Amino acid sequence: MFTHSRVKIAIIGAGPVGSLCACFMAENGYDVTVYESRTDIRLDKSTSGRSINLALSERGINALRFIGLDNIVIEELTEPMYGRMIHSIDGHTYSIMYDINKSKCLYSVSRKELNAFLLTKLEKYPNVKLNFSHKLVDVDFNAKLLTFQKSLENQQQTVKPDVIIGCDGAHSVVRKHMIRQPMFNFSQTYIDHGYFEISLPSAATKDTLAPGHLHIWPRSTFMLIALPNKDKSWTCTLFMPMDQFPLILESENEDILRFFNEYFKDFMDLIQPEHLLNQVTNGKARTLISIKCNPYHVNDNFLLMGDAAHAIVPFYGQGMNAGFEDCTILNQLLEEYDHDLKNVIKTFSLRRIEDAEAISDLAFYNYIEMRDLVARKSFLWRKKLDNILNKWFPQTWIPLHSSVSFTTIGYKQCKLDNQWQDQILFRMFILFATFFSISLYFFASIMSKSL
Amino acid sequence: MFTHSRVKIAIIGAGPVGSLCACFMAENGYDVTVYESRTDIRLDKSTSGRSINLALSERGINALRFIGLDNIVIEELTEPMYGRMIHSIDGHTYSIMYDINKSKCLYSVSRKELNAFLLTKLEKYPNVKLNFSHKLVDVDFNAKLLTFQKSLENQQQTVKPDVIIGCDGAHSVVRKHMIRQPMFNFSQTYIDHGYFEISLPSAATKDTLAPGHLHIWPRSTFMLIALPNKDKSWTCTLFMPMDQFPLILESENEDILRFFNEYFKDFMDLIQPEHLLNQVTNGKARTLISIKCNPYHVNDNFLLMGDAAHAIVPFYGQGMNAGFEDCTILNQLLEEYDHDLKNVIKTFSLRRIEDAEAISDLAFYNYIEMRDLVARKSFLWRKKLDNILNKWFPQTWIPLHSSVSFTTIGYKQCKLDNQWQDQILFRMFILFATFFSISLYFFASIMSKSL
Repeated sequence: MFTHSRVKIAIIGAGPVGSLCACFMAENGYDVTVYESRTDIRLDKSTSGRSINLALSERGINALRFIGLDNIVIEELTEPMYGRMIHSIDGHTYSIMYDINKSKCLYSVSRKELNAFLLTKLEKYPNVKLNFSHKLVDVDFNAKLLTFQKSLENQQQTVKPDVIIGCDGAHSVVRKHMIRQPMFNFSQTYIDHGYFEISLPSAATKDTLAPGHLHIWPRSTFMLIALPNKDKSWTCTLFMPMDQFPLILESENEDILRFFNEYFKDFMDLIQPEHLLNQVTNGKARTLISIKCNPYHVNDNFLLMGDAAHAIVPFYGQGMNAGFEDCTILNQLLEEYDHDLKNVIKTFSLRRIEDAEAISDLAFYNYIEMRDLVARKSFLWRKKLDNILNKWFPQTWIPLHSSVSFTTIGYKQCKLDNQWQDQILFRMFILFATFFSISLYFFASIMSKSL
Repeated sequence: MFTHSRVKIAIIGAGPVGSLCACFMAENGYDVTVYESRTDIRLDKSTSGRSINLALSERGINALRFIGLDNIVIEELTEPMYGRMIHSIDGHTYSIMYDINKSKCLYSVSRKELNAFLLTKLEKYPNVKLNFSHKLVDVDFNAKLLTFQKSLENQQQTVKPDVIIGCDGAHSVVRKHMIRQPMFNFSQTYIDHGYFEISLPSAATKDTLAPGHLHIWPRSTFMLIALPNKDKSWTCTLFMPMDQFPLILESENEDILRFFNEYFKDFMDLIQPEHLLNQVTNGKARTLISIKCNPYHVNDNFLLMGDAAHAIVPFYGQGMNAGFEDCTILNQLLEEYDHDLKNVIKTFSLRRIEDAEAISDLAFYNYIEMRDLVARKSFLWRKKLDNILNKWFPQTWIPLHSSVSFTTIGYKQCKLDNQWQDQILFRMFILFATFFSISLYFFASIMSKSL
């Protein structure tokens, strides 16, 4: 086996997962080169992020902890969200806390800022080389060759690393080449719904939204959400069926405002109409894709991680957390297999696929919860019951949202636990209903005899 | 609207479906150009086919009927198969007919010969141009541009047709480009099992297999099948889990022969051991892929058909039949929408996807039936019951295999009918069992009183 410093690792994609994965491999002493098709995100001065704000939770934090970055990221980059603030259509609001003790929270973070932070950290490793504007154009799986188009110099470069890790996101180029390899199972599913981003700058409003919350305007088939930023601005996102967007966003200005005033009255109190209209004119609705692969590797030297392997819809705020957790698992496997990379790569798929598929399903489900169920009485009762049972049995009764967001229990196990909890609650309900009916019957008999 | 002769249709792929589709479009008066990446299959003198022999059935024949080729294809190219001949491990054989009246049959045909026949037919249309050795290398969906690499002249050619139909098979290049388009859902699934082709030449044996049958050696987790050829040779295929092939095919000669002698004794009586070993040495096991897309079109001018849109596993012998039926449906839509091609292309997806997904599921199921169930008593009893009910109610009780192979009832409807039949049979069984139990009880009571 090579000594680690002689093993060349190529990481494709310098997004949050690619950057973190590179940090992990650098910490392990490998010779790491990162290739990113775009220019350095730190040089991009545009304020709009490429995506929804991210909600960092335990799995992501745990990965950052491995390289000692958890506290600094939380302190310098994030805003805490202790619960959901639900905005009814009549302007009434109520808060649903994530944790009964109000101590656990999600951390809202700008994708761009987190990415920039990790890149700056990454640059400090002497065994890491960062190549921006390197677009992967060809992969030779047998010869282990990667060919890049260097957009700045308008020339191509071919490299031959020992291991290639594709962290190049939901529209991964590494995966595009893997699709042609035998026995590589793959699916991409676009959901009918898409999203449109609206920023709510802190300066634009006198009032603002209550801090410490993820704000939701659930409207059954669509919803608006708002996540806080460090500078007191909010990143808001409108989710709705893709075919509905043109009807609203491409209509006359007064119709656009009428729609927002009708469904999001208290949101409109915080934003200047011109500012909203300006964003509607210049923005565009984007699609949401879910990716599944099996396996995540080709041969024993090509591996996919993060969104490239298992992009999910964003409704659980777990996309980046799952990607960061991939890094933790890769690190565990390096230790477990004593850096026998061939085995590490093959085992990664086995270790990860079921959990990634579970969070993919849960994320689909959570969209229904967010845009519809949170506004229902039955949901609030279930939440209360969950909290009571969690208080009585803190080790065994962990509600689904908590186990997903505040633990590192495997996603599949979280899903199974929730199914088991649903069954218990259903049986308790039947038992209670039966007991109540029998009592009512005896009470009625006694009453009729006494009359 | 253009007159048809001015509308340029590009068909990618000159396999059986591409060739037939081109015939249909030519008959409709369009200006058709076919692009095929390979050389003309008629110039290829190698005897081995690229795939399993095909089983032409009603849907395929119906499509050929539209252009008056049904009878000539059946007479000149095919061998009939009236039923399955099951070979038990002890050498015992029994026949299961496809049709109670023994009149309906599947037609075994070599993919290569059928393809060659259709190409020769296609050449006769004055409004068709056939371009071999044209490999599609780039697609511009917005500008409707296709770029081909002309391998013979080592130069590129860019064309701008009005409509592009991708009939380029399970590993479609057109689809590869479509995958990057928004809202294009796609999945590819490799099954765990693969196949290995073995030819049984007529000259190599004194004895041969009983004619008029598809021969099956079902061995629970694997199977061997044999389809007849016009020249009295047989095309045989061994199906088994991909990870088992190396254990058998890459072992010592005596171990290979021991395996075949143990499981396919009567097959080994027909083939010279050297001939078998020669094929094992020079051949290789191939994978089986299942493809699903939704929709089949991008914009209103790019359409996928046949395996490119919905490749299925081969166990129902419906892959080519479904592809040919695509041509029939396209033709019906051209008539229905009075050649408004934009509407035709968009409607094709809606009209076809559910049926294609149904035959995909049925084809998976039929593998279990072929390699395992056909050898079971319960399957034979069900088959007999189906035949009786079909005789009594010929219009309403059509067994699944018959409705798929001998009618043009939509595949989805075939699947639904089968589920309904299963329910009826299950209820009949319960009724019969209850009646039998009650009778037994009364009989026992009477007997005990009389004693």
